[in-house]
Amino acid sequence: MAPLRSWFNIPRGSHFSLANIPFGIISTSSSRNPHVAVAIGDHALDLDVFAANNGFSALSTIQPHQTVFSQPLLNAFAALGRPMHSIVRKYIESVFLENTPFPQVLKDNAALQKEALIPLKEVQTHLPFHIGDYTDFYAGLNHAYNVGVLFRGPENALQPNYKHLPVGYHGRASSVVVSGTPIRRPNGQILENPATGKKAPIFSPCRKLDIELELGAFVCRPNKMGEPIPIDEAEESIFGVVLMNDWSARDIQAWEYVPLGPFNAKNFATTISPWVVLMDALEPFRAKGLENDCEILPYLKEKNEKSFYDINLQVDLKTSSGSSTTVTKTSATNLLWSYPQMLTHHTITGCPMQVGDLLGSGTISGLEPSERGSLLEQNENGKTPIKLSGGEERKFLEDGDVVTITGVCGSDEEALVGFGGCVGRIEPALSM
Amino acid sequence: MAPLRSWFNIPRGSHFSLANIPFGIISTSSSRNPHVAVAIGDHALDLDVFAANNGFSALSTIQPHQTVFSQPLLNAFAALGRPMHSIVRKYIESVFLENTPFPQVLKDNAALQKEALIPLKEVQTHLPFHIGDYTDFYAGLNHAYNVGVLFRGPENALQPNYKHLPVGYHGRASSVVVSGTPIRRPNGQILENPATGKKAPIFSPCRKLDIELELGAFVCRPNKMGEPIPIDEAEESIFGVVLMNDWSARDIQAWEYVPLGPFNAKNFATTISPWVVLMDALEPFRAKGLENDCEILPYLKEKNEKSFYDINLQVDLKTSSGSSTTVTKTSATNLLWSYPQMLTHHTITGCPMQVGDLLGSGTISGLEPSERGSLLEQNENGKTPIKLSGGEERKFLEDGDVVTITGVCGSDEEALVGFGGCVGRIEPALSM
Ligand SMILES: [Ca+2]
Ligand SMILES: [Ca+2]
Ligand SMILES: [Mg+2]
Ligand SMILES: [Mg+2]
Ligand code: NI
Repeated sequence: MAPLRSWFNIPRGSHFSLANIPFGIISTSSSRNPHVAVAIGDHALDLDVFAANNGFSALSTIQPHQTVFSQPLLNAFAALGRPMHSIVRKYIESVFLENTPFPQVLKDNAALQKEALIPLKEVQTHLPFHIGDYTDFYAGLNHAYNVGVLFRGPENALQPNYKHLPVGYHGRASSVVVSGTPIRRPNGQILENPATGKKAPIFSPCRKLDIELELGAFVCRPNKMGEPIPIDEAEESIFGVVLMNDWSARDIQAWEYVPLGPFNAKNFATTISPWVVLMDALEPFRAKGLENDCEILPYLKEKNEKSFYDINLQVDLKTSSGSSTTVTKTSATNLLWSYPQMLTHHTITGCPMQVGDLLGSGTISGLEPSERGSLLEQNENGKTPIKLSGGEERKFLEDGDVVTITGVCGSDEEALVGFGGCVGRIEPALSM
Repeated sequence: MAPLRSWFNIPRGSHFSLANIPFGIISTSSSRNPHVAVAIGDHALDLDVFAANNGFSALSTIQPHQTVFSQPLLNAFAALGRPMHSIVRKYIESVFLENTPFPQVLKDNAALQKEALIPLKEVQTHLPFHIGDYTDFYAGLNHAYNVGVLFRGPENALQPNYKHLPVGYHGRASSVVVSGTPIRRPNGQILENPATGKKAPIFSPCRKLDIELELGAFVCRPNKMGEPIPIDEAEESIFGVVLMNDWSARDIQAWEYVPLGPFNAKNFATTISPWVVLMDALEPFRAKGLENDCEILPYLKEKNEKSFYDINLQVDLKTSSGSSTTVTKTSATNLLWSYPQMLTHHTITGCPMQVGDLLGSGTISGLEPSERGSLLEQNENGKTPIKLSGGEERKFLEDGDVVTITGVCGSDEEALVGFGGCVGRIEPALSM
């Protein structure tokens, strides 16, 4: 398919081609109240300004709902449902087409261009949703296997339930932050020498601060308490996808997590990318995920096996010396369970989902060492340091390290569907 | 201390004596928008109506904030802080005193009495808070021990971390419901014969539906991300306490919970009582909790050991045949960790708390069989059925069973500080 041509200058290689049009929340120095925007090339189109200046004059279906673009969160827009997201995205695309049927809206309207198209460098992005509940799954089979091997050996690497259900746990919604938010190293209880018999913890800054390369998906349709979402309807409940770094304190986790799961090891921060890529934009990149060699129960069976997305994911680590190293490259197809399966399993008990709920995929790792989505896997639980360009080494994150996750679909430089960056810099622990 | 006398008829034995004055959210047939009220005897005092009719005329400090009483949730009132909660509670108490200094406000104002004092039978109660995040702890030492014995034997009953930190996990905020909400039995994956080698689950309605007798506490003061709440300040962050039933699907839990903790086993429903008892009302009932024979880290050490509350808790089970049996009687002092300790541990990593966050205590059990706060403990994981009055037996809950938790402090029938009831009736599973 030939890339869509625009009258607007969208730089080659931009993550935000006309094939994308992701939604986010921005503010600017002149408009400090956060509100809705889309990213196009290296600009944001401010949809609050756009709507107020008759930008949607040729799209009557959205007109009764235009206040959603003035909101400081995407919840209200998302709640309009996927058919409406499709219509709005297609309309914005058409407005930017070289041969737009609506030139008067923006192409021939220099005043509105000037007001509504703002360089991304000049906008501040915000958390896109009010997140009622955040659930983190564990659908990255290779990650689960790698970690299982480290702690239990290859024979028992995966728990017996792993291939029967999408394992997940409830996470902490209040500490989900947008890309760029500084991440303070947590303090907590750790066992200094877990190998020795002594099981008395010390209080210490985390010494094994790690990343987890994940996707996050936002829910756009609520289900009533007591009424599960059938697998064939689950896609209608998913608004879009972001990149996610589920920061993890491995030493705190090791001491605390039996029997009720990770708690303080995960609750200090989870970073997401600011621009939510709609499911429609990901549609051309549908792919199969990892094969499940076990017979799954009917409620989890999908008609379409291609319910995963071929997103090229990358993790870069920049140290305070300034040198940067790509530590991971992998694909988002490295998942055993799809988002519809996660959502259906989550609600099979009747658990009610709300618009804005966030679902983490679990850490995404490929099979090769260079494809592992956590440092724990890369360094084999602290045994083999990772060599960085510039001669430094890392086992886990040090203060001043900057971690950047990027993700992009496709290879046509004029039609990329990308996520921008998901960035966090480690600040020293609070001294107690 | 002699009980406070009121000009208003507060029945002997009421949970809502003048020593209590708990806050909640109500609506009535004539005022359908939920708003704030307090419970007094067998009436609710509608604070929205009260405020609108100069009820707070003698309390200038609350006047700039009176809109909090028109809100459909207690978050805004709670956010005013504990000193303001104290002042408002004391003022309402003074308005009801036999020798009230403000007789014109309500005692001599028959019109306002008629409008603002509504029989509890005529009000509908609602979830009192918007709950941003819900965390369930596991501070009931006897429960943790009893369950540990069932699954691992007495030697390894408690995990090595148990006495060093308040074990907890993130719960599902969206399924926290107010007393009276029907509870649908969840469907899910269970292992039919866990003892046999076969580790393939079936899909089934939960067969081991259980209760957990807990307290819930609401947070009233946020902390910034990255900034822990010191133990000596933690009490200032706690608004008040409710009764909580953490419904649990034991068979779903057994199959799913390793390694990341309970998920679907807990996410279908958690019931809380509607009237939030303020910390000030509980103050006279301070008591020591269970002794911790292990040296805890300094950040968890409290100056005042009496940071627990002597609340007499009771669980009653009524079957569809109509017969009712008290299955549990115990005290809320059966906890190893206090709410300040839970809050401080929760935030030691910098995890941000928000006004309205809910903290579950963990299941509260005494030492005797009749004091156990879950059916799992009472029936020894299905081995010994519980005998009910009327000749029935129970291992776990059956459809139509009604579980009622009650809690009350004190024994002076004219000065009880009680919680009313926390009630749920089991409905049949959805047939799939
Ligand atoms: Ca994770
Ligand atoms: Ca519990
Ligand atoms: Mg996280
Ligand atoms: Mg629950
Ligand atoms: Ni919320």
